[in-house]
Amino acid sequence: MRSVLVTGGNRGVGLGLVRELLKDPSVSIVIATARSVDTANDLKVIDNPKLRIVACDVTDENSIAAAVEKVSEIVKDQGLDLLINNAGIYPPLDADVSKAIAMRQFEVNAVGPLLVAQAFHNFLKRAAEQNGSAQVANITTVGGSLALARDQYYSPPTTYAMSKAALNMLTRKLSLEWKGDNIRVTAFTPGWVRTDMGGPDAMQSVEEATVPLVKLILSLSEEHNDQFYKITGEKIPW
Amino acid sequence: MRSVLVTGGNRGVGLGLVRELLKDPSVSIVIATARSVDTANDLKVIDNPKLRIVACDVTDENSIAAAVEKVSEIVKDQGLDLLINNAGIYPPLDADVSKAIAMRQFEVNAVGPLLVAQAFHNFLKRAAEQNGSAQVANITTVGGSLALARDQYYSPPTTYAMSKAALNMLTRKLSLEWKGDNIRVTAFTPGWVRTDMGGPDAMQSVEEATVPLVKLILSLSEEHNDQFYKITGEKIPW
Ligand SMILES: NC(=O)c1ccc[n+]([C@@H]2O[C@H](COP(=O)([O-])OP(=O)(O)OC[C@H]3O[C@@H](n4cnc5c(N)ncnc54)[C@H](OP(=O)(O)O)[C@@H]3O)[C@@H](O)[C@H]2O)c1
Ligand SMILES: NC(=O)c1ccc[n+]([C@@H]2O[C@H](COP(=O)([O-])OP(=O)(O)OC[C@H]3O[C@@H](n4cnc5c(N)ncnc54)[C@H](OP(=O)(O)O)[C@@H]3O)[C@@H](O)[C@H]2O)c1
Repeated sequence: MRSVLVTGGNRGVGLGLVRELLKDPSVSIVIATARSVDTANDLKVIDNPKLRIVACDVTDENSIAAAVEKVSEIVKDQGLDLLINNAGIYPPLDADVSKAIAMRQFEVNAVGPLLVAQAFHNFLKRAAEQNGSAQVANITTVGGSLALARDQYYSPPTTYAMSKAALNMLTRKLSLEWKGDNIRVTAFTPGWVRTDMGGPDAMQSVEEATVPLVKLILSLSEEHNDQFYKITGEKIPW
Repeated sequence: MRSVLVTGGNRGVGLGLVRELLKDPSVSIVIATARSVDTANDLKVIDNPKLRIVACDVTDENSIAAAVEKVSEIVKDQGLDLLINNAGIYPPLDADVSKAIAMRQFEVNAVGPLLVAQAFHNFLKRAAEQNGSAQVANITTVGGSLALARDQYYSPPTTYAMSKAALNMLTRKLSLEWKGDNIRVTAFTPGWVRTDMGGPDAMQSVEEATVPLVKLILSLSEEHNDQFYKITGEKIPW
């Protein structure tokens, strides 16, 4: 029985991941984090004893530390089998690039996942000791691929692409650093999804993206460590 | 006759680049920027009319704007043929990773080059209109390569690697975005160099790195656009 934590679980892809994870019989606890628990209404209406809602702003070290305390009370000695770094932002498209905009992309999309992964490292380690392995899934974008930076059909804003390239580097570095702990680290793109970020023209509904994505994430084995996947299981070059 | 700007020109690799650029007969103006001009003694002792010293903190939008004004007075209608984004920092090795440390890596190593490149875009465009092309050279590290992130002999701290991966993404994105302006963007690693950053055990002196690096940068043509090179001219995968 697995315990999972999803950052940014209150809307969009994160909420979709939470909903699908709750349906999976192999999952016993789903911890959905939200910056504002008060307004996380779509989470609060879910009537499922497996679900726990925990406050966490991934850019705030104190908020992360408080979340660690809460998660510790929830999972006790069980540790955390799966951490999904999903929280992310897109730069405003109607403003010129500024230092503040660029820094905020890095803060949420790259530094947030780094801080969250470090904060829950011991929980992942404990789960791996008990169950053989644990998993970090970083939600990134094909637009963060250096290999595809010039020839892809989709070219996101530069600051977003830079921050997701940094997240991809985090994925590769942690997968090496934590190999001895049997913690695997893998990157995923959900594809273009109809969320507040993806907009109404996106090709997939949240469900169309998150049903296969959860299936893929829950089926990960050692061969998927240090890889980058589409929801179809197709590999993306770094 | 070419005009060149080097950020972080007051010490280390940047100072070495300035010294070699001054020797090249095809270079008419070398603008060395320093955060603190007052203490840039190694630049101030250089007695060469081609050299201009301009204050610039690459993380400070006002400082960059002031540098743009100064550079405008220096190069007049000539524009800027070559911008070398050299300024960079390494994280402290004796401290745990914190948000502040991670954010500072991105601020100097990735956001700085983005802001500086944008600020001098019009100067590069003007030079390209007059001379056929202009060039941005981003000084990065092989440790910023996503492709080599797990199998290289040199594995830098995660936050440094993440920030340089972001800089590499900037290189690829700008090389596409500015193609129509005939501005090429290329990434270079100096190798391991004996500077304050590289430390005393590094394999190369500043001169051993910067003599071939300046030769390579000054010989760039369209085939080098959107590539990543060692000082030997050997290509590095992204
Ligand atoms: N939608 C797409 O087409 C698409 C494509 C490729 C990749 N992605 C990636 O998929 C992930 C989810 O995107 P989405 O489309 O679901 O975006 P979204 O609808 O805008 O939702 C973003 C989520 O991230 C949370 N978040 C933002 N800043 C946060 C912070 N500082 N601390 C904690 N949580 C924070 C938000 O919480 P609040 O409600 O508190 O703001 C929200 O739950 C992102 O990493 C995104 O880059 C999306
Ligand atoms: N040395 C190596 O082995 C090595 C290897 C691979 C790549 N590199 C890269 O090569 C470049 C130069 O490194 P180095 O070895 O010469 O480092 P260094 O000796 O530490 O010098 C760094 C330079 O960057 C400047 N700088 C730092 N923060 C700045 C800011 N906010 N605004 C403007 N300038 C700033 C410094 O100015 P102050 O004097 O004001 O601090 C200094 O001039 C860096 O991008 C580095 O990442 C070096």
